[in-house]
Amino acid sequence: MAKKFVCSTTEPIVHTKAGKLRGFILDGTYTFHGIKYADAKRFQMPAPVEPWEGVKDALSYGYVCPMLSQEVPLGEIMVPHRYWPKDENCQYLNVWTQTISPDAKKPVMVWLHGGGFAAGSSIEQIAYDGENMSKYGDVVVVSINHRLNILGYMDLSPFGEKYANSANVGSADMVAALRWVHDNIANFGGDPENVTLFGQSGGGMKVWSLMQTPSAEGLFHKGIIQSGLLDGFLNSPKTDGTHIVNAMLKELGFAEGEVGKLETVPYDLMASAYNKVCPEIARQGLYVGGNPVPNDFYLGDPRVVGFTEHAKTIPVLIGTVFGEFAFGPGVPHKYDLFDDEIKPMIVEKYGESSEELINLFKAAYPNKNLTDLLALDSMFRSPTKDFIEKKAIHEEAPIFSFMFAFEFPYDDGKPAWHCSEIPFVFHNTDKVPICNVPDFSDKLEDQIFQAWIHFAKSGNPNHQGLPEWPACKPGDEATMIFDENSEVKNNYDNKLIALHLKAAPKFKFGEETVLH
Amino acid sequence: MAKKFVCSTTEPIVHTKAGKLRGFILDGTYTFHGIKYADAKRFQMPAPVEPWEGVKDALSYGYVCPMLSQEVPLGEIMVPHRYWPKDENCQYLNVWTQTISPDAKKPVMVWLHGGGFAAGSSIEQIAYDGENMSKYGDVVVVSINHRLNILGYMDLSPFGEKYANSANVGSADMVAALRWVHDNIANFGGDPENVTLFGQSGGGMKVWSLMQTPSAEGLFHKGIIQSGLLDGFLNSPKTDGTHIVNAMLKELGFAEGEVGKLETVPYDLMASAYNKVCPEIARQGLYVGGNPVPNDFYLGDPRVVGFTEHAKTIPVLIGTVFGEFAFGPGVPHKYDLFDDEIKPMIVEKYGESSEELINLFKAAYPNKNLTDLLALDSMFRSPTKDFIEKKAIHEEAPIFSFMFAFEFPYDDGKPAWHCSEIPFVFHNTDKVPICNVPDFSDKLEDQIFQAWIHFAKSGNPNHQGLPEWPACKPGDEATMIFDENSEVKNNYDNKLIALHLKAAPKFKFGEETVLH
Repeated sequence: MAKKFVCSTTEPIVHTKAGKLRGFILDGTYTFHGIKYADAKRFQMPAPVEPWEGVKDALSYGYVCPMLSQEVPLGEIMVPHRYWPKDENCQYLNVWTQTISPDAKKPVMVWLHGGGFAAGSSIEQIAYDGENMSKYGDVVVVSINHRLNILGYMDLSPFGEKYANSANVGSADMVAALRWVHDNIANFGGDPENVTLFGQSGGGMKVWSLMQTPSAEGLFHKGIIQSGLLDGFLNSPKTDGTHIVNAMLKELGFAEGEVGKLETVPYDLMASAYNKVCPEIARQGLYVGGNPVPNDFYLGDPRVVGFTEHAKTIPVLIGTVFGEFAFGPGVPHKYDLFDDEIKPMIVEKYGESSEELINLFKAAYPNKNLTDLLALDSMFRSPTKDFIEKKAIHEEAPIFSFMFAFEFPYDDGKPAWHCSEIPFVFHNTDKVPICNVPDFSDKLEDQIFQAWIHFAKSGNPNHQGLPEWPACKPGDEATMIFDENSEVKNNYDNKLIALHLKAAPKFKFGEETVLH
Repeated sequence: MAKKFVCSTTEPIVHTKAGKLRGFILDGTYTFHGIKYADAKRFQMPAPVEPWEGVKDALSYGYVCPMLSQEVPLGEIMVPHRYWPKDENCQYLNVWTQTISPDAKKPVMVWLHGGGFAAGSSIEQIAYDGENMSKYGDVVVVSINHRLNILGYMDLSPFGEKYANSANVGSADMVAALRWVHDNIANFGGDPENVTLFGQSGGGMKVWSLMQTPSAEGLFHKGIIQSGLLDGFLNSPKTDGTHIVNAMLKELGFAEGEVGKLETVPYDLMASAYNKVCPEIARQGLYVGGNPVPNDFYLGDPRVVGFTEHAKTIPVLIGTVFGEFAFGPGVPHKYDLFDDEIKPMIVEKYGESSEELINLFKAAYPNKNLTDLLALDSMFRSPTKDFIEKKAIHEEAPIFSFMFAFEFPYDDGKPAWHCSEIPFVFHNTDKVPICNVPDFSDKLEDQIFQAWIHFAKSGNPNHQGLPEWPACKPGDEATMIFDENSEVKNNYDNKLIALHLKAAPKFKFGEETVLH
């Protein structure tokens, strides 16, 4: 059935600090695509956009930050993508809202995309579309692009004061976007005093790293971290870009110290030089950029350096999914094997810990097929548990834990993989074929979606569609396990995860591994 | 509501000549994305893919042919896009069907995308998705990628026999795709003896140029040409690539005649060299490639060289849209001006013909606002009328004419632009916000969609939702005007278009103009 569409010369028009913007209205949802929130020269801090006269259209998504290598169209059934034209002039955001009344003060949810800090975009996944979340949750949804990889995270500070924060300008873009939200979102019907960051994978890391970023203080009030913890990320020892930058200069045929030339060399050449020299510098254990590193702007992993006073006040909803990246040659496709067929595979993968792991797994997941033990993640789950424990100590704000353990109707039953919860979070399972499971997925979507919305509204994810879900206490992790029958369990997988982390073959992230 | 999704280790699996493929089923629609239908070396004719053992997944769209320049994300409200990773290894097609029974013999509709012969892809527009068309029309929908621009259309024949058809290998890819359809579509529930080509803009040109391509004979049986005629396209005098290729070689630093190096030079370098040397060669009126040119493979524009015997037997549905590219600085946004405000604008645009044009316009479109005359197309409509006249002479098969004249709810009322009918054709107005007009767009979608489906089934677009729609006769063009109230008129705009073509400022297609 046709809906009502409006995009006239007079509406919908919203005043921002820099000028007027026109979006469109579809069936009551006001939509603005590709709002430029900042401008920046390469390696420099972002600045507010120049004011303009008249009305600018916000009807096309903005450029996406260039990547280090071209995407490969694979695995679309698991994670359907939407690729986009790329340019380093990429400081764009999108807004979906049900009202543009400045008095409405609806909760604001700002999506930080995954792809580590090297890839992805605000629209990279079909499931990132904000229309349904705004409509069914009555919230203002914002999603942002920002600088990535060597454009966003390459320390040139040894080469001049103007590059002081080049190691973290990608995150500075995010702060600029949050500043834009703070200054303008009221005119889009949002409450600048109730802003929730949510993100998955690299996007989850962005949430907690912004909790450790003093300039972001006051610009957001709650955080949702989905599959956003990995050990050894974002807390490299303080270092500088001397080696990697000089290696890039040499590769490009520039003289040592001619760093100014990096400001104008075509991105593709710079990326290609970086890709060539990076592995050797990384092998030496030296800084290679591409991720935030602690400095005055970003203070470091709170599990290592402690939570900032601001971070302590942030209510957090945090969790992972059952399988994450734990698939591979060792995991059979067919999930109707008998135990005696599975056990040899388990022994092959986990060695002498197998028997104990099997017992722990059956206790933690009594309704799962034993085959699923072969696809269990601990790489994300273990540091997430560590984060929960350390955050729960601070009683200023609650922390809620979840596990997404749904099995998808793929390859005769496949446990949840990295990114697979995102369509449920955005109420977008209608856009992602593999999420369709009659009798189960609609209910699960409602449970998850409403938890995220309730958390954004009040800092508490509890709602009438779920069993009671307490916040975690030190030593007592109450985890909402989202599945066909969602339930809360306390400390249900502590031993399982600790042993699994030791026994499972180490997953290697290569230089070019992209976290989606 | 959740639908039923199936993608197991046992279904849906279809046997093709080269091997088994697995797709997925959503709510009864069998879907196969990214089927490789051919392989080719650069500048060479395509060859069938190597057979394989086991089952290959067809779950991700395949690579798209690289473009000559990066796309710019603009105008998304009018034509929403889906960009995609690019590689010249791009011979992929997609299939949507309601059954995989070899006895089903459903009509097959093969979509040829627009973008001239230089850009675009089978999934470039959101509206190209084939699920709804297959589901609501009970047809098998196929869409294809093929080589474009200098990869698909660059004559190297003066440099060696191995390049004999390099001027048209992009079209040879399409023939290979049609051969794949002929050989395999029965196993996807399709009837290889009832294949309809349909395409818009460059895709429309592909339809009629394949009617003039002997090797495509017998591989398709009907053609739908949407906004697919422009004067001066695809009928350059026979010529060869000596000048342009030598200019590219020189620009790349290769010696004259070192054409073998073009086979392996990275595409980006070759495209960049081409973009640099092309304008000067074009200025001299010499061949620059990028489009099919007549040779033994493709015989030329039927309006110039005559219809082939095969082409004469092809029933055709053909038409254009009201405005096409006829927008610009001269066209005001506001459509509620009084006649005395509009007339000076009309005089400014059309000069001394204005008074007569106004009278002809009011007679042809009595319900349209006079402002729309400023946005009327004749650049596509005029050669389309010429095509109809010349095809109608051949009584072997009928030709039906349409005009899409719907006004969209944009900028206070905007006449149909190039590409704007596509969501209606594919039954995809639900995916394109601007197509939503309560009380009108659903009915119009049904009228257009069913006309295309009926034409694919029987060669006749008539159905009970439309007034009677006769085929055209020589000197008698019966045109179905699709609008809020669709109706047939005979020879309704002959004088209007003839005069408009003379009076309207010439639209310039630059070398880099992309026809979407």
